[in-house]
Amino acid sequence: MGAAVITDLATEIVIPVCAAVGIAFALVQWVLVSRVKLSHSSNANNGLNDYLIEEEEGINDHNVVVKCADIQNAISEGATSFLFTEYQYVGVFMVAFAILIFLFLGSVEGFSTKDQPCTYSKDKMCKSALANAIFSTISFVLGAITSVVSGFLGMKIATYANARTTLEARKGVGKAFITAFRSGAVMGFLLAANGLLVLYISINLFKLYYGDDWEGLFEAITGYGLGGSSMALFGRVGGGIYTKAADVGADLVGKVERNIPEDDPRNPAVIADNVGDNVGDIAGMGSDLFGSYAESSCAALVVASISSFGVNHDFTGMCYPLLISSVGIIVCLITTLFATDFFEIKAVKEIEPALKNQLIISTALMTAGIALVSWLALPSSFTIFNFGVQKVVKNWELFFCVAIGLWAGLVIGFVTEYYTSNAYRYLNLFILIYLVRLLIVLGPNAPETILICSPVQDVADSCRTGAATNVIFGLALGYKSVIIPIFAIAVSIFVSFSLAAMYGIAVAALGMLSTIATGLAIDAYGPISDNAGGIAEMAGMSHRIRERTDALDAAGNTTAAIGKGFAIGSAALVSLALFGAFVSRAAISTVDVLTPKVFIGLLVGAMLPYWFSAMTMKSVGSAALKMVEEVRRQFNTIPGILEGLAKPDYATCVKISTDASIKEMIPPGALVMLTPLIVGTFFGVETLSGVLAGALVSGVQIAISASNTGGAWDNAKKYIEAGASEHAKSLGPKGSDPHKAAVIGDTIGDPLKDTSGPSLNILIKLMAVESLVFAPFFAKHGGLLFKIF
Amino acid sequence: MGAAVITDLATEIVIPVCAAVGIAFALVQWVLVSRVKLSHSSNANNGLNDYLIEEEEGINDHNVVVKCADIQNAISEGATSFLFTEYQYVGVFMVAFAILIFLFLGSVEGFSTKDQPCTYSKDKMCKSALANAIFSTISFVLGAITSVVSGFLGMKIATYANARTTLEARKGVGKAFITAFRSGAVMGFLLAANGLLVLYISINLFKLYYGDDWEGLFEAITGYGLGGSSMALFGRVGGGIYTKAADVGADLVGKVERNIPEDDPRNPAVIADNVGDNVGDIAGMGSDLFGSYAESSCAALVVASISSFGVNHDFTGMCYPLLISSVGIIVCLITTLFATDFFEIKAVKEIEPALKNQLIISTALMTAGIALVSWLALPSSFTIFNFGVQKVVKNWELFFCVAIGLWAGLVIGFVTEYYTSNAYRYLNLFILIYLVRLLIVLGPNAPETILICSPVQDVADSCRTGAATNVIFGLALGYKSVIIPIFAIAVSIFVSFSLAAMYGIAVAALGMLSTIATGLAIDAYGPISDNAGGIAEMAGMSHRIRERTDALDAAGNTTAAIGKGFAIGSAALVSLALFGAFVSRAAISTVDVLTPKVFIGLLVGAMLPYWFSAMTMKSVGSAALKMVEEVRRQFNTIPGILEGLAKPDYATCVKISTDASIKEMIPPGALVMLTPLIVGTFFGVETLSGVLAGALVSGVQIAISASNTGGAWDNAKKYIEAGASEHAKSLGPKGSDPHKAAVIGDTIGDPLKDTSGPSLNILIKLMAVESLVFAPFFAKHGGLLFKIF
Repeated sequence: MGAAVITDLATEIVIPVCAAVGIAFALVQWVLVSRVKLSHSSNANNGLNDYLIEEEEGINDHNVVVKCADIQNAISEGATSFLFTEYQYVGVFMVAFAILIFLFLGSVEGFSTKDQPCTYSKDKMCKSALANAIFSTISFVLGAITSVVSGFLGMKIATYANARTTLEARKGVGKAFITAFRSGAVMGFLLAANGLLVLYISINLFKLYYGDDWEGLFEAITGYGLGGSSMALFGRVGGGIYTKAADVGADLVGKVERNIPEDDPRNPAVIADNVGDNVGDIAGMGSDLFGSYAESSCAALVVASISSFGVNHDFTGMCYPLLISSVGIIVCLITTLFATDFFEIKAVKEIEPALKNQLIISTALMTAGIALVSWLALPSSFTIFNFGVQKVVKNWELFFCVAIGLWAGLVIGFVTEYYTSNAYRYLNLFILIYLVRLLIVLGPNAPETILICSPVQDVADSCRTGAATNVIFGLALGYKSVIIPIFAIAVSIFVSFSLAAMYGIAVAALGMLSTIATGLAIDAYGPISDNAGGIAEMAGMSHRIRERTDALDAAGNTTAAIGKGFAIGSAALVSLALFGAFVSRAAISTVDVLTPKVFIGLLVGAMLPYWFSAMTMKSVGSAALKMVEEVRRQFNTIPGILEGLAKPDYATCVKISTDASIKEMIPPGALVMLTPLIVGTFFGVETLSGVLAGALVSGVQIAISASNTGGAWDNAKKYIEAGASEHAKSLGPKGSDPHKAAVIGDTIGDPLKDTSGPSLNILIKLMAVESLVFAPFFAKHGGLLFKIF
Repeated sequence: MGAAVITDLATEIVIPVCAAVGIAFALVQWVLVSRVKLSHSSNANNGLNDYLIEEEEGINDHNVVVKCADIQNAISEGATSFLFTEYQYVGVFMVAFAILIFLFLGSVEGFSTKDQPCTYSKDKMCKSALANAIFSTISFVLGAITSVVSGFLGMKIATYANARTTLEARKGVGKAFITAFRSGAVMGFLLAANGLLVLYISINLFKLYYGDDWEGLFEAITGYGLGGSSMALFGRVGGGIYTKAADVGADLVGKVERNIPEDDPRNPAVIADNVGDNVGDIAGMGSDLFGSYAESSCAALVVASISSFGVNHDFTGMCYPLLISSVGIIVCLITTLFATDFFEIKAVKEIEPALKNQLIISTALMTAGIALVSWLALPSSFTIFNFGVQKVVKNWELFFCVAIGLWAGLVIGFVTEYYTSNAYRYLNLFILIYLVRLLIVLGPNAPETILICSPVQDVADSCRTGAATNVIFGLALGYKSVIIPIFAIAVSIFVSFSLAAMYGIAVAALGMLSTIATGLAIDAYGPISDNAGGIAEMAGMSHRIRERTDALDAAGNTTAAIGKGFAIGSAALVSLALFGAFVSRAAISTVDVLTPKVFIGLLVGAMLPYWFSAMTMKSVGSAALKMVEEVRRQFNTIPGILEGLAKPDYATCVKISTDASIKEMIPPGALVMLTPLIVGTFFGVETLSGVLAGALVSGVQIAISASNTGGAWDNAKKYIEAGASEHAKSLGPKGSDPHKAAVIGDTIGDPLKDTSGPSLNILIKLMAVESLVFAPFFAKHGGLLFKIF
């Protein structure tokens, strides 16, 4: 049982220091980005005249700078105003749900203030259920606020950085890349460090009341994850509907009907589209990943509290999850320097490898980091609570659990890249994946496909025969892309569960998310580049600038898909860990599929992701129809709008997106938030277990296939547009029939990849964490319907 | 425990008599259909001159009759030649798999011929494992042959009836309807009666060896279900790829590129398309429903054999499932008379109600039939084996189990109709469904939708803004259409399981399938009408004839969707019952989601339907691409083909479809057939249980959503084409932009609704029945991988 190497005091110091370092690093990056001046008073060369090795275009043209600043302002104002409107609605929900939590949990022991026997160690006394109700409510509110702040900060940084990236693109693609990436890093590090810090402070404050009652403390802390994730749900769904209603609406009239380019300032929906990128892809995703991080930490902590760490009051051991995250921040800091300082991007084709290297470097370094933490912070062996029985775990076994999660994330990321990237050939890293594919594709036509083209090129090729075959091939690609990630997740689950039961799964999820700062930086980089391109187009900058931002954006598309892969994979592990914690807390010893209560839960749970997707997709469709009508109306009624003589009415389009997303986010939100409450209260914990398991195994498939299908369609279109190979040229150019078919595919993919797909991972996590928080209530008062009959 | 009212002797007589009545009825219907003469020697008015109350067009034109006969011949020959090719490949597989069954099951006790203790009653001696191996192999072969014969007969009847329906359409829509429906009934009754008879004879023959060893007898009989379903898999997948490759290929070039109508004889793929309807929708579906019927009977029999029926040698009680099917034949016979004799169709708008009434009448009558059988054949109470414990069941409880399955089928059927029919308003029966929908659609926009238009009209309306919104709305519709069927299935499972454990679920499945003869008649009616329309077009008959067959066909589309709904719902129940029997046989007491072995099975199982769909959809896409190229080649290289001066080369298109479907059906077939063997052998029965449960809960959702999405797109297109309302007219006419968008949706839906969707229910059933057949082997030698490590 040898003790940990580092002391509790060291732990108490290391965690906040790492968080502070992360925040400081974010600020440094921000200062570097802010050096790109947008105001008119600055000196003409932006203080970078010592570094202008690449050619510059119109760098002294103040008009362009002013125009960029104006557009940035409009986007930033639109995004801020939308988020404030969203937060008003969400705020009402937050207060209502906080009251609900208090009432449900308080009623477990009839609002009694008396201490009660602990759930797991019946011989000890723990704090009252009322205390749990109060502290759960507080941590829920804290989590919700941190999530909202994370999303809002991300949006602010992104709208600060977009025009600056455009301006830097005048100096070359390398400069623009660094600006966009640094801005992404600001967001990544702020979120990771902030999340860790708030959690750490909360634990220490709660400890003042709970003392050595670790079980009670960490049960109350779970509210933090619930708060984070419930805000993320509304952020993702609301933001997702906003951005895709605007995007689909703008494309359908602008690109398809009127043949004007994307982001053309004559299109009335263009500002709404750019605002959407910031509220959906940035704020929504920020909240989402913060939620995953908070939940996996909470799941790990709650399981640790009932292990020998909690029993022996081994604070360092219990804080192992937080230490992993702390080391993660330092590892990501070093990784970031590889992109911004150690190497320099000189050409377009270096962008995607640079981003991919970020993933590989962070994973490799983090493996060492995990080993270090496992060696220093854990006793050589300890026991874990495993559904009623104790399991002895060695520290190196736990290292394997975290590491397998980390590496499974990388595998998922690369498979996603394989299925969504339009690059011509992959012979270096992908030889491995090809071999795996050879094994799994039972068809006799596998080898020829492998030698000829990538999946996205296959999809692009199918555009020859029209939109229908493009859609059929795209859907098939998405379905197929599920196979390897599911095996990767299954292996991680099997290994980590075998080694350290549910704690193993919780730390595997944490491992996948340990490089979250880098992941977020890469993710945020995409929409920032997308916006930068939009601003270049709207400001009327030269074609070359647009080409550079397009190249940044194309790489961003693939990394966005990778980011979604990570988010989904980690969500699967997190929700399984939360599910395990819920089952332990609800004192269920088995979840037997052969009992009808569980089986119908499983069946209905597997249906929920479909119901949810139907709602969100229909919402995007309806909102897009309204947008289409408005854009058509403006084109038809405002004279001179298509000649660029009259200014379109951007504000009405922004309002349509805002109203639609606020109105439409409520039903899917209600579905997710109410299902566990209704099922738990009326059908009891067994049925709820079934629902959670069903939603998990079914949701993860739809989420992966939806986001990969969408990503593949998007890049198939870009592949035809770019025309970089003979094959691609034979399908193009823009406006050709195959290109039109590809645009239809891209439009269909929008709600799949940016609204319903990424929201699904929140669905599965959120239902699990909510069940865990309400577990004491369900265990006591749940299953009303079966009790009555 | 009061004994049953009817004696064992009566049972022995009733079952074959009912089967014989069914076969006789089928022959009578066939004679009636054959009265429509296709040969030239007949008298001009086809012997029906006493009945020609409706106007006749060109009824004396011998040329038309000759032309119809020629086309019918071509279709029939194409279908026969394809099926023979398919059967050659499938025959090889059948022999190989039969050997595999023998070897696997024989090796359980090392091919020993000694009797062994029974699985469930250890104190008694049962026949050797070798006997089980031999008889399982025999019943597998019997099931396979019956399935093949069913499919082949169906195809023969359909290709016999299609031209006759066309000719009768000259006399009016009522005549044509009766011809098509009677032909469907021939198939329905032949299949149902044949399936029952073969099963009954096999049981009696096996009894000669097994004597009173019911457990061993019915374990061996399970092979019958496996044989039926494995042929159905290849039939569905092969036929589905065949028909959709031809259909998609023909439409993409003919309708989209060249603007020639559907089924135009100038299109080289037109014969292949019509052949496809017969091999896919008729032969494939016949095998499929026969498989479901065989499996649910086997599942019920195997569970019954280990209940008190088996222990007490109560032959009548054990034969309860067969008695239900026997009564079902009689009930369906009466129901058919309502469509063909009691009432007469006089107008187009009466067709759909007539078909729907068939469902309602058969369900109502069958409820009484079930009550009768339950009262006569069951003792007032008996005990059922429920995973190791005994459960007492009353006869009226079992009545409820069968009845709830029957009625759940009706609910699923009507929900499917609601989501796929393009009729303008439903105020009679659907008021109920609307109310349910009001409750489940949480969105505030529900009421307005309800008052304005049906879901299909919504989808049609979205075509205004192009193909992309059509696809988004269609996918959302499919996802949404899953909700009520899943609740219906969940309620049936819960009620029937609570009342009579796994036996309850097995008989609920049987209840859903008890009206199979009517279901098949309605199902087969659709493709026959479709073909009739094709023949009218190709024979150059007048526009009015085509309009009549189109009306028959449109109603057929909706009933086809209903049929698929039935097939999927019953497959869900059947596979759960088989799953339960497997778990009992493999001596697993719980399938605990919380063990990693089970959970990874669940996760991977839920992925399998995606993998399978990816394969089948890609296959259709690739085959369609080849077809498109061939059709284009012929249009470009054969001079005068578009002017109708030169005859297209139909044979090459038939060959492309044949080759593609034979080649492409192997990988998905292998995936389904090998998965249980690999998982069971290497990972053991727990993981296999997880895989079965995962595939079931995930597959049923994709299957329902895929077939409804496809059906809705098809009917949205037909809605625009028919232009029967102001709204529909505003979207049309044929060739308008919204219509083009609708055609794209229809084409995407083809592989979803006719290939991957309906194959999925075979996937879930087949894996379950295969696991059950191989259970003795897995229980003894399975889980190699875990044994080694």
